[in-house]
Amino acid sequence: MRTLTFQRVTFTMGLPLLKRAIQDQVEKTRNFVSRSLVIGEVLSMADMATGVKCGIIYWLFGGAIRSLGGPAHVTQWLQPLQEQKYTGMFAMTERGHGSNVRVIQTEATFDFSAQEFVIDTPCKNAEKMYIGNAMYGNYAAVFAQLIINGRSQGPHCFIVPVRDENGSLYPGVTVVDMMHKEGLHGVDNGILRFDSVRIPRENLLDKFGSVGPDGQYHSPIKDKSARFNAMLAALTPSRLAVTFQAMGSMKLGLTIAIRYSHSRRQFGPKAREEVKIIEHQTQTLRLMPHLATALALTFASRYAGTLLDEDIFRGKELVDSRPLQALVAGLKAYSTWENVSCLQDCRECTGGMGYMMENQISGLKCDTDVFVTFEGDNVVMLQVVVRELLAQYTKQCEERPVSSLLRNWVESGSDRLRTSFLAFNMDTVGHLTFLLKAVHFRERILQRGLVARIYYKVMTEKEDFFSAWNSCLHHITCLSLAHIHRVTLEQFCLAVRNCPDQEDQDLLKQTSKEASQRRV
Amino acid sequence: MRTLTFQRVTFTMGLPLLKRAIQDQVEKTRNFVSRSLVIGEVLSMADMATGVKCGIIYWLFGGAIRSLGGPAHVTQWLQPLQEQKYTGMFAMTERGHGSNVRVIQTEATFDFSAQEFVIDTPCKNAEKMYIGNAMYGNYAAVFAQLIINGRSQGPHCFIVPVRDENGSLYPGVTVVDMMHKEGLHGVDNGILRFDSVRIPRENLLDKFGSVGPDGQYHSPIKDKSARFNAMLAALTPSRLAVTFQAMGSMKLGLTIAIRYSHSRRQFGPKAREEVKIIEHQTQTLRLMPHLATALALTFASRYAGTLLDEDIFRGKELVDSRPLQALVAGLKAYSTWENVSCLQDCRECTGGMGYMMENQISGLKCDTDVFVTFEGDNVVMLQVVVRELLAQYTKQCEERPVSSLLRNWVESGSDRLRTSFLAFNMDTVGHLTFLLKAVHFRERILQRGLVARIYYKVMTEKEDFFSAWNSCLHHITCLSLAHIHRVTLEQFCLAVRNCPDQEDQDLLKQTSKEASQRRV
Repeated sequence: MRTLTFQRVTFTMGLPLLKRAIQDQVEKTRNFVSRSLVIGEVLSMADMATGVKCGIIYWLFGGAIRSLGGPAHVTQWLQPLQEQKYTGMFAMTERGHGSNVRVIQTEATFDFSAQEFVIDTPCKNAEKMYIGNAMYGNYAAVFAQLIINGRSQGPHCFIVPVRDENGSLYPGVTVVDMMHKEGLHGVDNGILRFDSVRIPRENLLDKFGSVGPDGQYHSPIKDKSARFNAMLAALTPSRLAVTFQAMGSMKLGLTIAIRYSHSRRQFGPKAREEVKIIEHQTQTLRLMPHLATALALTFASRYAGTLLDEDIFRGKELVDSRPLQALVAGLKAYSTWENVSCLQDCRECTGGMGYMMENQISGLKCDTDVFVTFEGDNVVMLQVVVRELLAQYTKQCEERPVSSLLRNWVESGSDRLRTSFLAFNMDTVGHLTFLLKAVHFRERILQRGLVARIYYKVMTEKEDFFSAWNSCLHHITCLSLAHIHRVTLEQFCLAVRNCPDQEDQDLLKQTSKEASQRRV
Repeated sequence: MRTLTFQRVTFTMGLPLLKRAIQDQVEKTRNFVSRSLVIGEVLSMADMATGVKCGIIYWLFGGAIRSLGGPAHVTQWLQPLQEQKYTGMFAMTERGHGSNVRVIQTEATFDFSAQEFVIDTPCKNAEKMYIGNAMYGNYAAVFAQLIINGRSQGPHCFIVPVRDENGSLYPGVTVVDMMHKEGLHGVDNGILRFDSVRIPRENLLDKFGSVGPDGQYHSPIKDKSARFNAMLAALTPSRLAVTFQAMGSMKLGLTIAIRYSHSRRQFGPKAREEVKIIEHQTQTLRLMPHLATALALTFASRYAGTLLDEDIFRGKELVDSRPLQALVAGLKAYSTWENVSCLQDCRECTGGMGYMMENQISGLKCDTDVFVTFEGDNVVMLQVVVRELLAQYTKQCEERPVSSLLRNWVESGSDRLRTSFLAFNMDTVGHLTFLLKAVHFRERILQRGLVARIYYKVMTEKEDFFSAWNSCLHHITCLSLAHIHRVTLEQFCLAVRNCPDQEDQDLLKQTSKEASQRRV
């Protein structure tokens, strides 16, 4: 399976379209992010393992070089990916730290006399784990604590050779095969250990922190924590790529399940032909909301891609786009959970057929199940969303404390009036505009409540921030999902309004109306 | 994998405990159902494929003989299972009909001159599909339309030889390997086709319908449809066995996930040790409700087992125990869906570790995913529940139309008062007694509403019953789950009240109180 996937990856990465995508990434061509995301979506529909492995090489390894390295790194390490001179992997997660990556333990100690970094795995918990392409790849983008004169400057990313083109391991590198997973059998995940692996000083991707020949550390960001945040933010595009892969999976699963539901017949009126199973009310109610969500997510995630492209094109640091950070983290969690629930319904709605591997749905389920925890565990993602939301909120309040207080007060008064008024009119409930108002309302209420709760706990009760935050975690995840549902619905409404095809537009509008009538 | 599972099954079925269980089934020893159910639960925790394969032989093949056959069949076919002279399979589902098994197309035509039945697969849709143990088993309990003189008496069950002890197929039988599934790789599922396979007249399991040497058909139940209902009802114990297997799976998954959550640390207060992930509010809130449900389901399903045992011991036909039918069908749907959602949370709460096969959770997920559609698709099961509930309801109304009408009216008035009064008292909301009242209330409201809707559609609007029922399908599934939640909670409350250990009892009571306080 892995050999086959390797061949598929080689074939795919050799296609002119993919080579062009790498060149676009090298040149930061306008809209290269959006274009690559769609390529990723399509690839993952053809074969998920191939899509994920190409993603590791293009988005994770390549993306790290482009986002964290300088122009020389791009020329030396990213450009040659076009010719498939080698492939790469992305080594951030460790045995001890998957979510809290700030405190990873791998070390990169600067050796002044040799002008080299020495990469080390000081303990078992520091082993790089779940690393995709570990059994085939030649280079790894390794995150390690940068240590100069015994002092850590926080995690930085280094290009570390793992094996040469003949497959021989680089001295000091150990790779252990992690073997069997629930799915993605074509992707080789492994454990990496480093024992005094020496790499040239130039192998540090130094956009956010560099070490001069004199051993001096320089960084445009003084605060260690803020610096690492900037690095993580720069990797945002690869997080959005997961959303596109999840969408590909949903669309494929739904196509199979909905088509089957239109061909299979079971039960029917007495002495008459059995009806198509899509005509069973529950079958429609189980599948159609997923189709609607897949559509809505398509518009929302393309919107996020466009924002990313604009920021990158204008040379803006992604860490400064707080709403965009929240959007991408939220979309990652929403889309991958939605994918799990969608495929589960697709599998159940196709009965025993859905359990057979040949019909693809259960294979997709197993392959994409990992999406909810990789590239940022979803519960952690939801917290990223709320952290960004609160940062925005605080900033607003600081900028104009009186006016925002007033607006808050006015809004909370009118919110109540508007919703209770509209709720009386049943016709209105099914309209997209009402739905949008409702999800807006929910988000505001949850946000205001959360701010009040955390403020009370920290300022009045003098709880430490971690425990105050933790005791609100359920509230936080609700707000987070409410936020991302609102943004997704907004993008869906916009797309419906701007739909170029009149017939399609009518259909999209009609469905929501019909649904409301059915509910009545 | 299949060979290994085959060896495991052989070893397991050879254990004195299992041999005893078969003998108990032969003798219909008091409480043999309950005892076997627990054996099934434990087996499935050791290895799900072995548990399922033993279930096919013991519950499905053996159960069909005990429930549908006469004493001679039991002696001839069930008793020898102890010595493992052969194994069997259960062939009901066809390509064309998995849920609507009433209209299966396999034929068993009586040949008077030879005193034999001729088993035939007249078309592709009549092929027996997904049959477990198809690649190893020697005999199949085959459901086929019993045809005498060109007239069908509806589906009956026949013992059909598939292959001899050397593995050679019986003339006229074709078996096709169905190969790869999402899970249960140790279970061999196949397709069976019959081309004029001749079996002796005695191979008809004739408890609900027999054919004499004269070719005359006799049955204690005149109506064809009622007769088939009686046969399906007799197979109820094997449906309950799925619930026990699902519980085994949940308990194993929860044990792994909760233990891991107590050992893994991630994030924490500034400059302090990271906290155990179980201390993250969301982790607890995701896992503990599943633990509570697994406990509640244990009591409810053991209760169902006891009722089954009592009925069988008293020689009562299971079709006459309507509430028990509803209970078992509902438990099957509730427990298997709960298992899917529980394992999904276990897998997500254990991060990347949960995705690795060696940690069992994802393997369990893949193995047990089939439970939601096999032995009766869950959506169909929910309809069985409501059909039984409405039948009870109608019977009540017929027996005392005025008084029940009155009771209905009085209840609907007081329902409202009671709930709105209690809702003011926040302390009370967390008590089990209030929760029980609430789920009772929900069930009554949903039932009354459904009866009114269907009555209006059929009697006033003159809709045909199928379409009236279908347009209420969502309502039906809600009522069904509300019913089964209520019964499960009732059994849980009873178990807490009767808990022999004071400390355990306090803990069970305390938890629900704490949870309510946390919510406030």
